[in-house]
Amino acid sequence: MPIVLAASVENATILLHLFIMLAAAKLMAEVFERLRQPAVVGEILAGVIIGPSLLGWVQPSEIITVLAEFGVIFLLFNVGLETKPQSIFNVGVRATLVGVLGVILPFVAGYFIAVAWDGNFAEAMFIGAALVATSVGITARVLGGMGLLDMQTSRIILGAAVIDDILGLLILSLVSAVSNGGVNVISLVQTAAAAIAFTVFVALVGSRLINRLAPRIEQLRLGRPFFTLGIVLCLGLSVASMYIGVAAIIGAFLAGMAMAEATEENETMHHLTSGVTEFLVPFFLVNIGMQLDLSIFKDSSVVVLAIVITIAAVITKFVGCGLGAWGMRWREMGQIGIGMVPRGEVGIVVAQIGLSLGVIEPRFFGAVLFMAVATTIIAPPLIKVLFNEDQDGDGKIDGAVEMDIDEEFSRIG
Amino acid sequence: MPIVLAASVENATILLHLFIMLAAAKLMAEVFERLRQPAVVGEILAGVIIGPSLLGWVQPSEIITVLAEFGVIFLLFNVGLETKPQSIFNVGVRATLVGVLGVILPFVAGYFIAVAWDGNFAEAMFIGAALVATSVGITARVLGGMGLLDMQTSRIILGAAVIDDILGLLILSLVSAVSNGGVNVISLVQTAAAAIAFTVFVALVGSRLINRLAPRIEQLRLGRPFFTLGIVLCLGLSVASMYIGVAAIIGAFLAGMAMAEATEENETMHHLTSGVTEFLVPFFLVNIGMQLDLSIFKDSSVVVLAIVITIAAVITKFVGCGLGAWGMRWREMGQIGIGMVPRGEVGIVVAQIGLSLGVIEPRFFGAVLFMAVATTIIAPPLIKVLFNEDQDGDGKIDGAVEMDIDEEFSRIG
Repeated sequence: MPIVLAASVENATILLHLFIMLAAAKLMAEVFERLRQPAVVGEILAGVIIGPSLLGWVQPSEIITVLAEFGVIFLLFNVGLETKPQSIFNVGVRATLVGVLGVILPFVAGYFIAVAWDGNFAEAMFIGAALVATSVGITARVLGGMGLLDMQTSRIILGAAVIDDILGLLILSLVSAVSNGGVNVISLVQTAAAAIAFTVFVALVGSRLINRLAPRIEQLRLGRPFFTLGIVLCLGLSVASMYIGVAAIIGAFLAGMAMAEATEENETMHHLTSGVTEFLVPFFLVNIGMQLDLSIFKDSSVVVLAIVITIAAVITKFVGCGLGAWGMRWREMGQIGIGMVPRGEVGIVVAQIGLSLGVIEPRFFGAVLFMAVATTIIAPPLIKVLFNEDQDGDGKIDGAVEMDIDEEFSRIG
Repeated sequence: MPIVLAASVENATILLHLFIMLAAAKLMAEVFERLRQPAVVGEILAGVIIGPSLLGWVQPSEIITVLAEFGVIFLLFNVGLETKPQSIFNVGVRATLVGVLGVILPFVAGYFIAVAWDGNFAEAMFIGAALVATSVGITARVLGGMGLLDMQTSRIILGAAVIDDILGLLILSLVSAVSNGGVNVISLVQTAAAAIAFTVFVALVGSRLINRLAPRIEQLRLGRPFFTLGIVLCLGLSVASMYIGVAAIIGAFLAGMAMAEATEENETMHHLTSGVTEFLVPFFLVNIGMQLDLSIFKDSSVVVLAIVITIAAVITKFVGCGLGAWGMRWREMGQIGIGMVPRGEVGIVVAQIGLSLGVIEPRFFGAVLFMAVATTIIAPPLIKVLFNEDQDGDGKIDGAVEMDIDEEFSRIG
């Protein structure tokens, strides 16, 4: 039988690795839930444990990257499904302020830290850019699990994350151009215009279009028409976003938001989508953890750099976004500030671009990677604390404005 | 912005291809439903159209292969969830007879056709082996969509498919050994024993174990414990199957069957699993269609060979399996016979192994590929006709023993 095995051994190995990722993620999720800690942190740590840093059972690969991308895409699609466009427009000005302030402070801090560590101009610009981008998926996952996506501060975080991503794109474009020796202002303006036009257009028109087409969608002969249209639209807008230059998750979020009103009462559609999300999200979380390279700890100077960058990343984002919420209650400012802290996969991608362009040195790359994973692990417990208005410590929420539709059945399903 | 784009352009291209596959599959499913034809056929033809044969928009790749494998794994997991072990054991003898006769006739026919076309001994053995293996996923998809998985003939088909897969494995091992110059009888017996022991053990013990653990599973802290355990078990047993040498879908089916009783009343778990399946199955179906190589039609002698092999594959499986059901009603014999006809991905894999070992010539490879795709397209409409006891032509079933749990909500979700 060796021949038959040999023919399928590659597939079997890939499936084995994906099984290990899923099983490790869920085991750690259970452990962390029992410790009253956020399950996401457990799943990210599962990646650290089984990844190259520690056990080395699974290595990052192209297939894992695609599944991870699918995971965060469906996560944001799901969040979009529970977000009516009006609820984001209502907090638009506030979200813009939060987004802008939350971009400026981390960029400046990153720039000067790199300069202080003898980085050159291009390098410093890149480190600044790497500190900018928020990974809203992590926060959305924690808030969704708590059933708090409907809170006003959650809405502001989601809106600010969209602004943050567009600004991050522009900064990255600018920084890449600088490091390539020339800034083409026209090209930059075009990029900005395309990104903003796409986002605003889909946000404004998408929902109305789907609402108007809803009766026709119901008439489709194929099974589960709203779910089917939803996943097609989700992938389609994700791809469109990538070609325009913003993150795929922006498109996925907009796709979900476009369908939010038409599918509000459609529990089946929500359950089907949840199934896809729950299956794919572990690959996203574990993949983040697998990026961590603990070998940087062999060089104590890099350790110091990594810790300084991480502290700066947490404080500047927290303060910047918190200040953007000036005038709201302290607790709300804190909620918004901490919700924007995770850098996750976005920080990792920026660092990888910098490395592949030869702009940043390995020590900066390692430090930024550490920062991206560390902020993603630090934030969720603090999010839980600041959003949890129930202080009796039983771990149950009683301040939720509206429970997540999934919450009701998540104990048994 | 070209730099930023360039860094993510590979991912964007992959996502674009996956989007095209999904959108094309669902468009064709809608068209075929309107023509009152099975949606699966539309989705397979979508693969023929967008694949290398015609438009060339998407090429088979490793990532698509993994997603396709996931698709058929979850498809069989879903089928298993609706199949209590006892219902398979009850038809065990009949299923074995159907499986065995349905293996012998196609093998003999394939062998002699290859000999008639001047194939050598090893080649003829391989063509025989390629005609053996049934792809039960296609039939299960059609019957599940009609809500007929609970019929006795459906159970016999599922049981026979398991037998068929194990026999197919043994034949393939034997044939591979012969083409490598030596048959190791001990190794063959070990392979057979391992495959049978694994299948019987999981089928007998799995369900009891899960039923006994059910109260503890409900106590788990992580969200949706049954669904989570289900997908972990599904992937785990699929991987185990592959290492033992049977197809991953056997493990997935056994995993579903093990959970069938414990989750019988758990609609949420079924909906979540359906979501994953509905998202992934199109990749499985489109990938089958993409394997078709229409360029074989440039050589008329290959066309004749392909057509002869296809006709033989349909008739021998239909007659062999139908005879295995001797003593049942004519309609039931026909249902079982036609249900075993699709060769799909299993025939393709056998042909690929033969080609990679250098045992079969390209003309035989092309002809077997054609047979695998053609049987998969021919069978579903005939399955619909033979299982559809309602003859008034309105396309609705009224002979269903029990409607699929998904049926009730599939119109709107």
